[in-house]
This record gives sequence, structure tokens and C-alpha cells, in this order.
Amino acid sequence: MFSCWLSRQYWGFSTPTGRIAHLIRGSLSRTLVLSSQRRTPEFSSFVARTNTCGELRSSHLGQEVTLCGWIQYRRQNIFLVLRDFHGLVQVVIPQEESAASVKKILCEAPVESVVQVSGTVISRPPGQENPKMPTGEIEVKVKTAELLNSCKKLPFEIKDFVKKTEALRLQYRYLDLRSFQMQYNLRLRSQMVMKMREYLCNLHGFVDIETPTLFKRTPGGAKEFVIPSREPGKFYCLPQSPQQFKQLLMVGGLDRYFQVARCYRDEGSRPDRQPEFTQEVLPVFPKASRNWNTPVAQSILEEQRSGLIRLMEIQEDDVVLLTAGEHKKACSVLGKLRLECADLLEARGLVLRDPALFSFLWVVDFPLFLPKEENPGELESAHHPFTAPHPSDLQLLYTEPEKVRSQHYDLVLNGSEIGGGSIRIHDAELQRYILATLLKEDVKLLSHLLQALGFGAPPHGGIALGLDRLICLVTGAPSIRDVIAFPKSFRGHDLMSSAPESLPPEELKPYHIQVSWPADSEA
Amino acid sequence: MFSCWLSRQYWGFSTPTGRIAHLIRGSLSRTLVLSSQRRTPEFSSFVARTNTCGELRSSHLGQEVTLCGWIQYRRQNIFLVLRDFHGLVQVVIPQEESAASVKKILCEAPVESVVQVSGTVISRPPGQENPKMPTGEIEVKVKTAELLNSCKKLPFEIKDFVKKTEALRLQYRYLDLRSFQMQYNLRLRSQMVMKMREYLCNLHGFVDIETPTLFKRTPGGAKEFVIPSREPGKFYCLPQSPQQFKQLLMVGGLDRYFQVARCYRDEGSRPDRQPEFTQEVLPVFPKASRNWNTPVAQSILEEQRSGLIRLMEIQEDDVVLLTAGEHKKACSVLGKLRLECADLLEARGLVLRDPALFSFLWVVDFPLFLPKEENPGELESAHHPFTAPHPSDLQLLYTEPEKVRSQHYDLVLNGSEIGGGSIRIHDAELQRYILATLLKEDVKLLSHLLQALGFGAPPHGGIALGLDRLICLVTGAPSIRDVIAFPKSFRGHDLMSSAPESLPPEELKPYHIQVSWPADSEA
Repeated sequence: MFSCWLSRQYWGFSTPTGRIAHLIRGSLSRTLVLSSQRRTPEFSSFVARTNTCGELRSSHLGQEVTLCGWIQYRRQNIFLVLRDFHGLVQVVIPQEESAASVKKILCEAPVESVVQVSGTVISRPPGQENPKMPTGEIEVKVKTAELLNSCKKLPFEIKDFVKKTEALRLQYRYLDLRSFQMQYNLRLRSQMVMKMREYLCNLHGFVDIETPTLFKRTPGGAKEFVIPSREPGKFYCLPQSPQQFKQLLMVGGLDRYFQVARCYRDEGSRPDRQPEFTQEVLPVFPKASRNWNTPVAQSILEEQRSGLIRLMEIQEDDVVLLTAGEHKKACSVLGKLRLECADLLEARGLVLRDPALFSFLWVVDFPLFLPKEENPGELESAHHPFTAPHPSDLQLLYTEPEKVRSQHYDLVLNGSEIGGGSIRIHDAELQRYILATLLKEDVKLLSHLLQALGFGAPPHGGIALGLDRLICLVTGAPSIRDVIAFPKSFRGHDLMSSAPESLPPEELKPYHIQVSWPADSEA
Repeated sequence: MFSCWLSRQYWGFSTPTGRIAHLIRGSLSRTLVLSSQRRTPEFSSFVARTNTCGELRSSHLGQEVTLCGWIQYRRQNIFLVLRDFHGLVQVVIPQEESAASVKKILCEAPVESVVQVSGTVISRPPGQENPKMPTGEIEVKVKTAELLNSCKKLPFEIKDFVKKTEALRLQYRYLDLRSFQMQYNLRLRSQMVMKMREYLCNLHGFVDIETPTLFKRTPGGAKEFVIPSREPGKFYCLPQSPQQFKQLLMVGGLDRYFQVARCYRDEGSRPDRQPEFTQEVLPVFPKASRNWNTPVAQSILEEQRSGLIRLMEIQEDDVVLLTAGEHKKACSVLGKLRLECADLLEARGLVLRDPALFSFLWVVDFPLFLPKEENPGELESAHHPFTAPHPSDLQLLYTEPEKVRSQHYDLVLNGSEIGGGSIRIHDAELQRYILATLLKEDVKLLSHLLQALGFGAPPHGGIALGLDRLICLVTGAPSIRDVIAFPKSFRGHDLMSSAPESLPPEELKPYHIQVSWPADSEA
């Protein structure tokens, strides 16, 4: 469904229903441009306001204007600051007896009420200009005012400097969205995605295709939500990504596909959730050690020491950080340690990472398989079973599969993984061999994909970017919750609407399911 | 997640993994443009092919070209027609002894295999030009060939004139997607949506915002899929539309919002599905009657007849179609009858509806409430409980609510409803009165929305278009299944992957649900 929506302050008011059609068409085709790029607004006859709050300057002096916005604050019942998402403007409340009704509206309306005012743009009295405010040279002397909607007592003030708890922000998300930062993040996200679309669609002929989200589980898809259907015992799954569909589109001749896809991963309240790796492993390396006398260094033989000194060209006052243990974990620890060292050095004033730079990095040559953690004699896919082996390692698949490199690639921005992709297997027999013989997966679940590869699948590959994380890095937001309009809490709750919620048994009946309540001992 | 994907025939082959990064960047930034507008392709050093199949003309004579595509058909082991989504081209299989291996590849590859060929563009021998084929003046004399992927025996031929059953098309959807019609529909859809985005985003400052699909049920939301969470007895719902979120965005100051949103309605296998209304009611009016002697006309009194004749200005040979009965049903019947008459007249050669025209129509002044079918003493919303009443009818809400008109509007294209929207209620008290007092709904389910309206909600409204249906009308597709890449069958099945599917009880355990199998008598 394609849906677009507007606040009506950008239209006329008291509109007879018969004119709605014109309103919608008028507003879609002719009304003002709202974007963070501050283009010149354009107005249709259906728009009540003549200007946005943020755009008035000395050049508007003497003009009659109509503004709409939220009341940001009021001073001594004389001044009122009006806000929309183009900025702030000061309006002067009339004090004359003849304007008593206008004064009453503007003085009684609570902060964050929506009002419409008309009046004249005037200079601020000398010495009262506010150079910090883009509209600080002028103010609007109000003649008429209308209260469009009154505001009840707010749970917190809509000011960026007012600190709120995360839970309160999520509960009143629609108020939190009024903050400058959330407005900026969401508007920038929209523009970034639009640029990506223009680039792919308009410049390079990619086709934007929506793939289903009511699907079936994929092998190893333990993180997929299940959806009961009206057929007893039959379930859909919400996919973790359009994984299979993009391959099927390649087989279908949609040779350049892209999608901004919704992905579902059920890990909200997993009891086996891992704590941060730094917490787990850095008590092992309590401090960078400046001599060979720490407990760890004690276990290094004398000849290993001299070997190390030679190899690393260690000199007086150098620091060497060592890890021991299982290869993958040791590497992870060294990675964390490297970041920790950078933090320590930067805290002392050494600039190692310029936050204004976007440093991209490709990671390639991943192994295709890894030994299973619970059973190292068996293999599992390092990424997923559809990744193609490196062409030079093809023969190793049949002799030493654990040595095969994959055609997987990850994209890293400023140290964070923002995306990844792979060249996929397009040969049905190779795919079957990897699934059935090497990974011992049930190929029946993927019979449609194997069949599709057999019907002239072209060689293909692609990439997917984690959009939330990418926008986080670009905006500098501390959490992906700050770049999503309505995020869930880390336990997967919608604190605003309180989803998920209990349902009466009769609503479950059409789906042929019932709740298995845990025994008291488990609850 | 943002995902883009390419068939590798548009890249180089035998690419070492270390070059993947360049490949992806190269192909994203420099390679050919594929669109139905046939812009001039642009090639990077990573692209194997030099031209698309559909673009070669006499102006290319003598050029060395490399083409990739599917084998459309082969004639007498001499000619082979290669297809990509820019068109068809004839290639000449070399017959010389020295080119035996090339001949072998091209003669043995089954139809619909993917091949890459290199050779010279030559003129067809005089008299062998094919004026019906855009590339019909030339052919490509092949020097080298590579089989990129072989094709197994197909369940049906990829030719538009080959008729397939709907079930077979859905089962092998990836093959059906290779048809000209499906390619055209999906590529046009992508371009149309892109134009809508450019218009709203770039020209009018709308912000594209993704809203959640794991939500809670809305009042009257019996058609919403439920998703069990890992908390016992707690469920999410998949929303029928971003209904509430768009209003909350307005409250949040995202003053111009749009989204191409996924909507979920569980009506796939409802046992109470209604048959087409025409079937049900047209046995009552078996034929348009040309005299007053039909059984229906018999029940009209003499004085009513003369009244009718005067009112309708009936003359000799005129046809009057009457319905009687409950107002809404009678109107529906007359509407169907009108279309039926148009069909009859058009069948006799009278052109009433030009299929090349796009005739738009707004429907306004809907009633806000309708009497409940099961209990006509109570009211239900004609559309949904958030629609604002017509401003002139506001007082009737408290006296004669059934007479209140709504600020709802529907958009109709060539007789089909393609969208609708409304001005919403922005006043919390009015919304509460309508929900609790007039509609007797449980307001607790909507407490977050009522609260949000109280915090300075601006007046607002919008519109949503049913994209599938709109694209159907534009492309002339007979069914919305023809404008969706991977549609479900009318019973909600994915015939390709066989979703929904059975899940073992252990996969349901984390969600605290079990299947209630119907008793034998019900099954």
C-alpha cells in the first residue's frame, strides 16, 4: 500500500468535504516544499500559512504573514515562541483591549498546543535582536489567532537539553519525535534512502521488487517468528532476509534487483543472549603490562621471549599485547584490545580516528566453513550455505573442505560492519553437494531453490547493507533506536502501545493454536 | 535492510575473490544501464558482455561483440537465438572443424541454458532479414562460447503464447518471471513507484518513514495475523495498514509522511467468503423488461406507474431498470446493472468506455456511521473510527449521529477503487466520544492514540493507494498476481515453496503455543 499523509496546518481550514479532492490534489501538486535543505516554499490556495516559522528575516519586514506551529514557550504573556520543523519565531501578543480575545487564546493555550496566527513582520526593538536565532532580527505582531489543538500536561518537555529515560522516550515516542535530533535523523534517513534509490534505479536500471514476508523457515532459521495460518498445524515464518527470493529473481531474469526490505529476527528475549565480549574477556588482561613479570608473561619460555623480541623488533618501553587460546577467540580479544588501546590513547589527546572521516574497508577471503562449536568434527557454513566457494579452491571441496575460502565479502565503515554479501552458487549439483553431503542439511526444505538453479540460473551475487546501522554511523546516533521512528525496547516490547499483548482464546481459535502456559515452577 | 543484487553476466568472470570489492563497486558505479527506456549502456572493465542482445543493428556491422543470455531456440544446429531482457538476437554457430568445441557447446546446451558468446556482427544474407525483429538485419558469427549454466528439462516453455495453468505458473514462479509480460509489469511497477517517490520526496519534501509491522491488534481487527512472542500468552499482530502510526507521526511533527507499506489481511481461507455480488442478485432481474407486464412490474400500482413515467420522462422503447429492497443493496444492484448494460451495449459495438483513457473520480460525502447489520439499532463506522465528521454536521453527532457525513474520500480509476483516505479526528475528546459512546468500543486498546491526540496533535489527513490494483489498471493485467513477483494463491499458499508448512512441536515450544487439532468430526 502506498500511503501519504499531511498535517493540515499546511492546508486551508474549515474545508467543506466536497473540496477534499481539490485539497489533496492541490497539496500534492502545488504546496510547500518541506525539507531540511530549506528550499523556497511554494504555496497553493489551500494552504493557510504563508510562511514557515523558521524562514522569516529582515527582508520580510512589513509583510502580512500567517504561521502555524507549536507553542515552544511564552514570556510574561507578551512574547510567544512558535516552532515548526523549519525553526523558531517570536510572536508578540497584542495587549490592546480590542484584541482581548486574541490575547486570551495565546496566553491560555498550554505549551505544545498547535496555533495559527496572522500578523505583521516587524523589527525587534534595538538591543533586543537575538543573533543566535536565525529569525532573531524580527518578530511577528499578531492580529488574529486560532487555537488548532490544545495540549495537555506533558510527561516531559520537548527540549533537547531535557534528559529523559529511554523507557519514557519510547512510551511517548510521538513526543520524542518532535525533538530536533529525531527529526534530523529521520529526515536524513529518508533522503539517504532516496539517493540510493535514484542511483540504483535511475542511473543503473535496477528494479525495485517487493518480496513476500509471509514465507517458510530456512534451514537454521531458529530466529524466525512463526505465524499460524487458518489451516491446522500449518505456519508461515517471517524471513530474516529476502535471502532466497533474490536468487529466485536472478533465475527469473530480473537481472538487477534491489529492495529496502523488512527483516525479522526473533532475538528480543532470548535467554542465551551473550553479554558484550569486552566484559567477558578483558578481566584476563587487566592492564597492558610493561615488563615480562606478569602472570601471563611468566608462562612464556625464555627462548620464545627472545624470538618475540626479534620478531616484533621490541625496544625499551614498547608494549606488547599477547593473547593465547582458541584462534578465533584470541583474534576477537586482540581486536577488542586494539580498540581499547585506541580509546586510551585518544583519551590522552592523540587523535587516531577522525570522526569526520568515513573510512571504508572490505573484508574478503573468509573461510567457507567453520567447525561446529558443539561438534568440531562437523562443518557449518561460516555465513550461509548459498555462498559460492572461491574458484581456485573448488577442488578442495572434495578433499579438505575446511580449507576452502568463500566468495563472501563484508563492508566495514569506521570499524563497524555495515553490510555484506556474496557471490552465490548457481550450479544446482554443487549446491546440493554442499547442503546434503558437507552440511548434512535437509535439502527438502530447499527443493524449490535447488530446482530453480537447475533451470538456467545465471551466475549472480550482491550485497545487503544494514540500513539502521549505516544511518547511525552517518548521524552519529548512539543507538539504532535513534534512527527508527517506532523502535521496540531491547526486550522486543513496544512501550507505547504495549505490544505484544494477551489475546483471548477465541481469537486464537481460528488459528488452531492454544497457549501452553508454563508450569508454576517455571513461571 | 537495503539489498541489491545482480546477475553476474554483467560482470567479468573467473574473478578472484580479492577483486570482489572492486567488482561490486565497479558494477554499482559504472556498469550498464538496464531499463525499459533503452538508454545507452555503459560498460566497466568488469563487465564481460559488450552489448545487450536487443541492441545490435546494422550500425554495429563488423564489430567484435560479447553477449550473454538465455538460449531461446536453435535451428538445425546452425542458428541460435539468444535472449536477454533487452531483446533477441540471432547468432550463427560455426561449422568449421577448427571450431568443433564451440559448436559442441552451442549445439548441446539445452534451451534456456545461460551462455556467453563472442563474435562478429555481420549482415544477414539477402532475403533472410527479419523485419519483425528489431535486430533482424544482423546476426553474430560466433568465435568463442562458454556455457555459464545448463538448463534441465523445463515444466513449460518460456514463450508468451504457451498457455500455462495458474497453479503451474505459481509453482515455477521464477520461470514465469522470464515472460515478457511479467518482466514488463514488474519493471514498470518499479519505475512508477520511483516516480511517486521522486514527486513526494524531492519535489514536496515528504519524509519516507518505515513503521513497524510487529504491532498489536486494532479494534475490529479480526483480519490480523497473530504472532506468538517468547512471553507466554503474549502476541504481536501484523497490521492491516500503518493506520495508527501515520497519525502518531503527525503528532510527532513529521508533517509530511509517506511510505510504501506492507499490509497484512488474513482473508485467504475464510469460510465466510462472499461470492460475487452479481451472481447473487441478477437471477431477481432476469432481463431488462420492455413492458409493464413482468412479475416485478405487476407489483407497481397504476398511479406509481404514471408518476414514474413523468419523473423519468419515459418514452416509447425506453428501458427502465428498477430495484426494490434495502437501500444499500438496491444501490449495489443498480451499480452492477449499469456495468452489465454497458457490457451488453459494448458487445454490440457501442464504445462507452475508452480503455486507453484514465478516468479518475473522487467519491465524497460518505456517511460517518452505518447501522450494524446484525443489530441495526447500533452504529458502526462506515470506514474506521478515526475519520473526522464533516464540520457542518458536527452538532448532529450528539442528536442524530446516523445523519453525520464523514470527511472520507475514495479515488476511483476507470470504475475501480484505487485508494481512499480521510481527514482524521485530532481532538482527543471527540475521538473518545465516538469510540466509547457512539461505537461502544473498548478504548483501552487505543489509549496511546487518545493520549497522543491530547498532546498537541495538529489537524491532519492523507490518502493511501492500493498499489497492486493501480499497477494492474495501468498495465492491463487481469489479476494482481500478475504485478507481484511472488504472489500467494487465492487460498494464501505459496505454491513454489509450499508455505505455510507444518512445524515440529519443539519449534513451537519457545513461543508457548501448541496446535489444537480439530476433532475428527470437524476435520
